[in-house]
Amino acid sequence: MLQQNNMPDIFAARRENVRRLLRERRLDALLVSQPANRYYLSGFELHDPQINESAGRLVITADGRDWLATDRRYADAAARLWEPECIFCYSSRTAKDIAALLRRCGLRIGVEAECVSLAFARELAKEGAGLFIEAADAFVEDLRVCKDAAEIAALEQSFALNHKMFAWVEAECVQGRAESDLAWGVERYFRENGASELAFAVIAAVGKNAALPHAVPGTDTITTNCPVLVDAGCRVGHYCSDQTRTYWVGKRSGSDFARFERAFSLVCEAQKAALNMLRPGVTGREAYAAAMSVFEKAGEAKAFTHGLGHGVGLETHEAPVLCAKSEQKLAPGMVVTVEPGLYYPQWGGVRWEHAVLVVEDGIRIL
Amino acid sequence: MLQQNNMPDIFAARRENVRRLLRERRLDALLVSQPANRYYLSGFELHDPQINESAGRLVITADGRDWLATDRRYADAAARLWEPECIFCYSSRTAKDIAALLRRCGLRIGVEAECVSLAFARELAKEGAGLFIEAADAFVEDLRVCKDAAEIAALEQSFALNHKMFAWVEAECVQGRAESDLAWGVERYFRENGASELAFAVIAAVGKNAALPHAVPGTDTITTNCPVLVDAGCRVGHYCSDQTRTYWVGKRSGSDFARFERAFSLVCEAQKAALNMLRPGVTGREAYAAAMSVFEKAGEAKAFTHGLGHGVGLETHEAPVLCAKSEQKLAPGMVVTVEPGLYYPQWGGVRWEHAVLVVEDGIRIL
Repeated sequence: MLQQNNMPDIFAARRENVRRLLRERRLDALLVSQPANRYYLSGFELHDPQINESAGRLVITADGRDWLATDRRYADAAARLWEPECIFCYSSRTAKDIAALLRRCGLRIGVEAECVSLAFARELAKEGAGLFIEAADAFVEDLRVCKDAAEIAALEQSFALNHKMFAWVEAECVQGRAESDLAWGVERYFRENGASELAFAVIAAVGKNAALPHAVPGTDTITTNCPVLVDAGCRVGHYCSDQTRTYWVGKRSGSDFARFERAFSLVCEAQKAALNMLRPGVTGREAYAAAMSVFEKAGEAKAFTHGLGHGVGLETHEAPVLCAKSEQKLAPGMVVTVEPGLYYPQWGGVRWEHAVLVVEDGIRIL
Repeated sequence: MLQQNNMPDIFAARRENVRRLLRERRLDALLVSQPANRYYLSGFELHDPQINESAGRLVITADGRDWLATDRRYADAAARLWEPECIFCYSSRTAKDIAALLRRCGLRIGVEAECVSLAFARELAKEGAGLFIEAADAFVEDLRVCKDAAEIAALEQSFALNHKMFAWVEAECVQGRAESDLAWGVERYFRENGASELAFAVIAAVGKNAALPHAVPGTDTITTNCPVLVDAGCRVGHYCSDQTRTYWVGKRSGSDFARFERAFSLVCEAQKAALNMLRPGVTGREAYAAAMSVFEKAGEAKAFTHGLGHGVGLETHEAPVLCAKSEQKLAPGMVVTVEPGLYYPQWGGVRWEHAVLVVEDGIRIL
């Protein structure tokens, strides 16, 4: 087997895991197009420059010769981490050129059907006459679901900064402050304290906007006596964090505060119920049901309008998912959010989110 | 024809243009999945939340009933701008649900083959038995290529902020400053002066890094006597700007400065040559050739390693492209960058970028 030079062992080891799966599936090669999968297996470019532009693709082969295919813009970045003779530069006729490369790699080729466009797949089929191209999704996603020590270390750093931000932000939630201003404050805090970027656009929702799970920060300002929901995550060492807190701003009395306090304590109770039973072997469905049962008993089931949580890693949303239908079992190394919420249209909402690492005997909160 | 309520006329007018094309192609409907196309036709969500998650899709029908299909997270955002009876909420079995919606819209359905995944297309074909689904790319992209008055106004604002940033940034290019620090300074300036986000990741490249068209800002610092290349764009009113400047930091004497000065004056000359001949009817190839001929005469053709420019609008890179092979003719309303550059590996590079609006009798620099 040909070794890639100058490559951190971790990426090479991950490619060996893909190779094992290729042999089991009797595929000669896997064309990797999904950006996070590409980075996971190579260290090359976590992001594509635009939704309709790829930074490059990997070809992982059963025989051990792995290709990094990219265009001229990325030739230098590629040369920094890949053996020169296994870098393939394609022209603007990408699919045609990649078909030619794939022909050198074997006959049975897997592609990530979720991550290649219909146009690319058609062109590949046309230009790759003689190749057997088949859907081979989730090869890499399934490997990514359990984090290794280096990934856990990066996630710990990312969540540590997230906690630090939330310790700071509560005092920033003051009357008169606009949502968009608060959101920019959060972003700036992350960036000036070690984050390379946001993991996702900051949600800062005031009053009734807190009832929208997908609130876009706008010009609404914090008033006296209102809930303020902040859902934010940063990226540190390439890994995402994701946490939500909901604060009450104003006088801690009156009917609105009482409503907030009731929702808040139910959300905390639901979260605790889920955290208490999370461990290897528990399914996403069971975790969701543990939280939901708290809301059901309180007659608030209808106000819990989304899943309980999701995996987090190189992407903010990744497998596994904790929801009503998920039969996937938790296993050591998985990192999932636990984020029950209660939402009342025209009034507001409460969500509280922790992320946990699943370990042999239970969980550890990140 | 059923009118969408509460919709700015501009989006409705754009959908009428799509409808005209549908009738010409004898399609019953177009499924719009590309985020910028979706926003262009509806005002709904310019971005998808993640590369593998859609915020929603439009179905533009020949008979005039247009659907906004999304999931529950976006129901509220949809309700703010779309007629409630034409909002379609799909479940996690998206393709199956959308196939059912499409069946209500006709038989012959166009999809953007560049923008739907192979997996989605296969599922749609399986669940949409009886439908004739065909590739219908660039319907919307072709409309987007010539900007209307509202788009030009937004682009002017975006470029005005970009100019303001560059007037500020030159004084920030001081010895000892790291690329990543300079890049964050640029981002912060944009955001604190009216930009909603970056148009693309800031490039700030010092010394030999300026030879890489795709330089990622790192820990390298500005030294005495070196070129500093800054390529940056912001988003204002949803529209992107994109400009590049290259500065010399240090003593304006010595052989490195002489080399910089020569490259700089050639780049300016090439840019002027292109700007002088840009007008409606000129092809992308001719514009590229005008700039290239300056470099050829100076014996520097090999140091100009990329195209001359690209369209800019809702996306940083869009049609038309000004490159050696482009036969697309310029037309009034197009906005293109003109960005010749010369790159010398291990030494550095110079790029200078203007964007221009093509008007009836020539161009106007933005």
